[in-house]
Amino acid sequence: MSLSMYQASIPVFIRMLGNLSAILDKASAHAEARKIDPAIFVNARLAPDMYPLSRQIQIATDVVKGCAARLAGIDVPSYEDNESTFPDLQARIAKTVAFLQSVSAEQINGSEERTVTLTMHGKDTVFLGQPYLLNFVLPNFYFHITTAYAILRHNGLELGKKDFTGNQ
Amino acid sequence: MSLSMYQASIPVFIRMLGNLSAILDKASAHAEARKIDPAIFVNARLAPDMYPLSRQIQIATDVVKGCAARLAGIDVPSYEDNESTFPDLQARIAKTVAFLQSVSAEQINGSEERTVTLTMHGKDTVFLGQPYLLNFVLPNFYFHITTAYAILRHNGLELGKKDFTGNQ
Repeated sequence: MSLSMYQASIPVFIRMLGNLSAILDKASAHAEARKIDPAIFVNARLAPDMYPLSRQIQIATDVVKGCAARLAGIDVPSYEDNESTFPDLQARIAKTVAFLQSVSAEQINGSEERTVTLTMHGKDTVFLGQPYLLNFVLPNFYFHITTAYAILRHNGLELGKKDFTGNQ
Repeated sequence: MSLSMYQASIPVFIRMLGNLSAILDKASAHAEARKIDPAIFVNARLAPDMYPLSRQIQIATDVVKGCAARLAGIDVPSYEDNESTFPDLQARIAKTVAFLQSVSAEQINGSEERTVTLTMHGKDTVFLGQPYLLNFVLPNFYFHITTAYAILRHNGLELGKKDFTGNQ
């Protein structure tokens, strides 16, 4: 076994998106059981100028579909960003996972020095593949999925860290 | 350039702990400027049964010192977990960074299949080095540093995601 760009990215994303999907299932079931409008959770935020749950999940999936496509040198799939319900968010996660599964190890491996150009806030930022994965993709992905967890936890959903990590 | 166990771990941890340290500096300066007892931030939580800021930072540093030591096959440094102020937390981050810097690429590389045994909740869990890093260490580390950020953000500290990721 030797660590590769593929192993450090695609299977990790798929695994964590599976955990995120299960967390959203718990949130949806909790809303139904407690007769709380699910939109309250989908639109919940930790601060007035932070993104709501729905946007956290849109960005988390954006980051990983962008990573898979850019490291493989193929077009980044475009999503509409119109999810407003738990089923919408689950569908977005599912189509992201299907896209990640469509990218092979052969397409990703060897991308350590592939040039990746991101346009953020109207400015181009150029990365090589390895620092793009380690210093941009993984911190951003984990930031948004952890914030999604924190929003739900702050709003009373019973979750433990193992729901997030999938360990134990 | 070829991705290695060292590059996917130690420099990432050091970089993110540097960002975390800068975030805590902002929190400390904010408390001072607004004449808010810093202990309010250090003890803040997102939910009554979630850990406070101080514990988030203790666990985040535990995870990475444990990773560095276990992958290198050396003893895990033991810390007292008695931090209760911003300077205490900064000192903990600094000693963790110093320990991470003391571990060489040669000690970490090739640890993909090294056996790592963790005792959690009284039960032994055995990992190989690579899944330990990818599926345990990184999710846990990012979980706790993102939660630290979220606690401060929820309590009114002006931060942006770039404080967390260090990008742009």
